[in-house]
Amino acid sequence: MRGLTPLRQLIAAYHSEGTGRTYTADNVCVTTGVEEALFATVMAVAGPGDEVMLADPGFLAYPTQVQIAGAQPVYYRMPASDRFGFDRSSFDRALTDLTRLVFVTSPSNPTGRVIGRSDLEHIASRLQDSHAIVISDEIYRELYFQDKPASIAEYYPDTVIVSGLSKMMSMTGWRIGWAVGPEEIIRSITVMHQYATSCASTISQKAAVQAFTPEGRAATEQMRLELARRGEIMAQAIEQEVDLPYVLGEGAFYIMLDVSRFGASEPVALALLDDLVITSPGSAFGNESEGYLRLSFSIEPALIEEGIRRLAKGLSRLTAV
Amino acid sequence: MRGLTPLRQLIAAYHSEGTGRTYTADNVCVTTGVEEALFATVMAVAGPGDEVMLADPGFLAYPTQVQIAGAQPVYYRMPASDRFGFDRSSFDRALTDLTRLVFVTSPSNPTGRVIGRSDLEHIASRLQDSHAIVISDEIYRELYFQDKPASIAEYYPDTVIVSGLSKMMSMTGWRIGWAVGPEEIIRSITVMHQYATSCASTISQKAAVQAFTPEGRAATEQMRLELARRGEIMAQAIEQEVDLPYVLGEGAFYIMLDVSRFGASEPVALALLDDLVITSPGSAFGNESEGYLRLSFSIEPALIEEGIRRLAKGLSRLTAV
Repeated sequence: MRGLTPLRQLIAAYHSEGTGRTYTADNVCVTTGVEEALFATVMAVAGPGDEVMLADPGFLAYPTQVQIAGAQPVYYRMPASDRFGFDRSSFDRALTDLTRLVFVTSPSNPTGRVIGRSDLEHIASRLQDSHAIVISDEIYRELYFQDKPASIAEYYPDTVIVSGLSKMMSMTGWRIGWAVGPEEIIRSITVMHQYATSCASTISQKAAVQAFTPEGRAATEQMRLELARRGEIMAQAIEQEVDLPYVLGEGAFYIMLDVSRFGASEPVALALLDDLVITSPGSAFGNESEGYLRLSFSIEPALIEEGIRRLAKGLSRLTAV
Repeated sequence: MRGLTPLRQLIAAYHSEGTGRTYTADNVCVTTGVEEALFATVMAVAGPGDEVMLADPGFLAYPTQVQIAGAQPVYYRMPASDRFGFDRSSFDRALTDLTRLVFVTSPSNPTGRVIGRSDLEHIASRLQDSHAIVISDEIYRELYFQDKPASIAEYYPDTVIVSGLSKMMSMTGWRIGWAVGPEEIIRSITVMHQYATSCASTISQKAAVQAFTPEGRAATEQMRLELARRGEIMAQAIEQEVDLPYVLGEGAFYIMLDVSRFGASEPVALALLDDLVITSPGSAFGNESEGYLRLSFSIEPALIEEGIRRLAKGLSRLTAV
């Protein structure tokens, strides 16, 4: 593959552009999807006696990865009552002298909410005197609907950005992710990565180079605009078919639908399987999202509308509590 | 890919044939190379307070993986004085009530030595009353020179076989490995695998199916015969060019060359870099292999002969201790 710029160099340039920092290939570890980037970072940085701050609600793999590393998950709330927005006082209360790692995910899975610049500045200023490292999960960062979300790495230098191609290039099965951050931390992450998997598929790594061509970047932009449109289509369908509150965030491809009037979210999600519609119960992502369903609008518009019709039909069979 | 037998089913059938046991897809976890199969097994099975038995010499990733899991490596010797053969009394001495996991690797990396059936029976009988699980690293099992090596899984049911396509199909960069064993253990390994990487590249998994076709099996057999020939070529070159003792095992693609008359192996390996010949110092694999170089004969015969000539030239510059 003579003539191709090495993948790590392309990733470094991409995140330099995205943060205003200067990353080189030595700041990058390529992994088997972002899952391994998260895993290797948690394992390399946190251990017994350490606290790891996680958003509630948040991606369900985080707390288990923290427990595998022997560290203690501590939650800061993104309150449902505030449309799952960032809550400074809850964040501040969760921070202690034992905090070793802080997860920041923007846009969020499951809520799609973005953390704004002033809140990121708040996080950076609160961590300034700590020995905490931030892990910034930016897997959805390219999928935004208005302004491009900022990165906490713009404000806090001890940040490990994790990302990958599964969302921005729809290359889920190819398993290409990465961690980008200060060289010393990346060296530790790379050691953990080498003992966990040795390396990501070289076939996938060579294909991944295409994501950083003008054509690849244009494909991401096209998908971004299409997802923004699909979010509006789903919101409109909900307003027409289902008389329930919902939260549509500023990025990713999820809507949180408030089904709390029917009780806990898991039985509701299970009941909807009879209508052949798949939703994720909010309880899977934390306490704060209990009573909600996570709906995905990554599918074709016609399927989104059909899904909401089925969901409305399914809910009509349930009894309010 | 309609019409293809799922990969896990093919792997189950392959190891059922190789052991006389009955494995199904539920006994298989597909991983990002055998490295992840090893890692996930160690992490799922062993932890603080556990002892893990490793061969000295052995593959260099094992002890670090054991330490990442928080367990204690304990070594049984494969004595250099006995051409790195299995040593029953050393094995028996290393086994304690704390032994949770036992590594068995046949053919061995770095020595290529195979553990015979009577020694495997000995291992099984000694472990019978323990609560130990065996991890059988069979990555080189298809690359043998006379009789096909037996698997410890034929004798000991609580065995997790790990293997992959990097050696038997020369598919190193594709990163396809697997763990095969009792369903309950495989379930735990699969959980660890999911939090470490989610899954192996689907592109690679689809390509991997070809390894189990008649054409794929024939390609492995052809490579096996060619490697047997190359081992003889390297041995002959050593006898002609270098007047030093060596060990050629019954499988894999390595010769252990005794360079102890020149002192420690690492400085010898480093000195040979000046002759543009790459060898692995035995010290990387354990105490028992110190004083040896691991030479690989996976390359073309002409390169093997050129490599041994360079090695002879390099050694002629060194002073015996």
